[in-house]
Amino acid sequence: MVANRRIRLILFGLGLASLLLAVQPLKFAGDNGGDQDRSAILEVLKNQQSNWNKGDVDDFLEGYWRSPELTFSGTGGIARGWEAVRARYKKNYGDRETMGQLQFADLEFRFLGPDAALVLGHWHLTRAKGDIGGVFSLVWQRFPEGWRIVHDHTSVVGSSQ
Amino acid sequence: MVANRRIRLILFGLGLASLLLAVQPLKFAGDNGGDQDRSAILEVLKNQQSNWNKGDVDDFLEGYWRSPELTFSGTGGIARGWEAVRARYKKNYGDRETMGQLQFADLEFRFLGPDAALVLGHWHLTRAKGDIGGVFSLVWQRFPEGWRIVHDHTSVVGSSQ
Repeated sequence: MVANRRIRLILFGLGLASLLLAVQPLKFAGDNGGDQDRSAILEVLKNQQSNWNKGDVDDFLEGYWRSPELTFSGTGGIARGWEAVRARYKKNYGDRETMGQLQFADLEFRFLGPDAALVLGHWHLTRAKGDIGGVFSLVWQRFPEGWRIVHDHTSVVGSSQ
Repeated sequence: MVANRRIRLILFGLGLASLLLAVQPLKFAGDNGGDQDRSAILEVLKNQQSNWNKGDVDDFLEGYWRSPELTFSGTGGIARGWEAVRARYKKNYGDRETMGQLQFADLEFRFLGPDAALVLGHWHLTRAKGDIGGVFSLVWQRFPEGWRIVHDHTSVVGSSQ
């Protein structure tokens, strides 16, 4: 009888825990994700902005998934892998003057599941040589180390200067 | 004893069913989604291509989420809502000559959860007045009516004649 009660308790616990696990992802299906996830992603973006504005491209790149599967799309086609994305940034923004001061604005979050999100926004570089800016679409995934950008599609909008 | 066995069976069934439910979404976290979902998305894209090539923009637009929340990003900024996306296509591709013959190529699928996917690819318009093409990033979600594009970010790559 004691053994039965123990088995029943174990099975009930297992059932309850599994049910909780099963139900948890559903709450993300229709809504816009948790405040915690939004804050975590926002924190990565804030760090990117501040690292860029210190002239540190490598620290800025910490926001991206450090993987050969990382992708970056734009008028240059599709860059593939963290190293290629780094090379692209180094080539296009070789010095502090070209980097200017970065500002992200009008961020829009769309959670696509418990571990994925789409973030749209505007970027702007204030520069002595002429401002430049546009829009980006960032696809994020949650990794053990935190939320990282797995795909970036960026466009320049309007004329610079 | 019969009651006990029944309770144990029910609890075991509950545990097993819940575990299966709980485990199911996890299989999408790291891999590239099911063949069925990939085929379903591919089918929508094939229909888009064939409707475009018939000159039917409205049928082409069936691949997009018919919602005010649909977004389309590019050098024109962010268009918001199905009607705005439709207006953009009608403005930029007003006649058959400008529409040309559409071909999608090099599709890459990245499943972001059981109900979301990112599809990267190249687009090309063959036209008498000059070809044009580039890259796109499509974010898809599964709806009761099927997989639909909830966000499109498209860029022109290279010069069009």
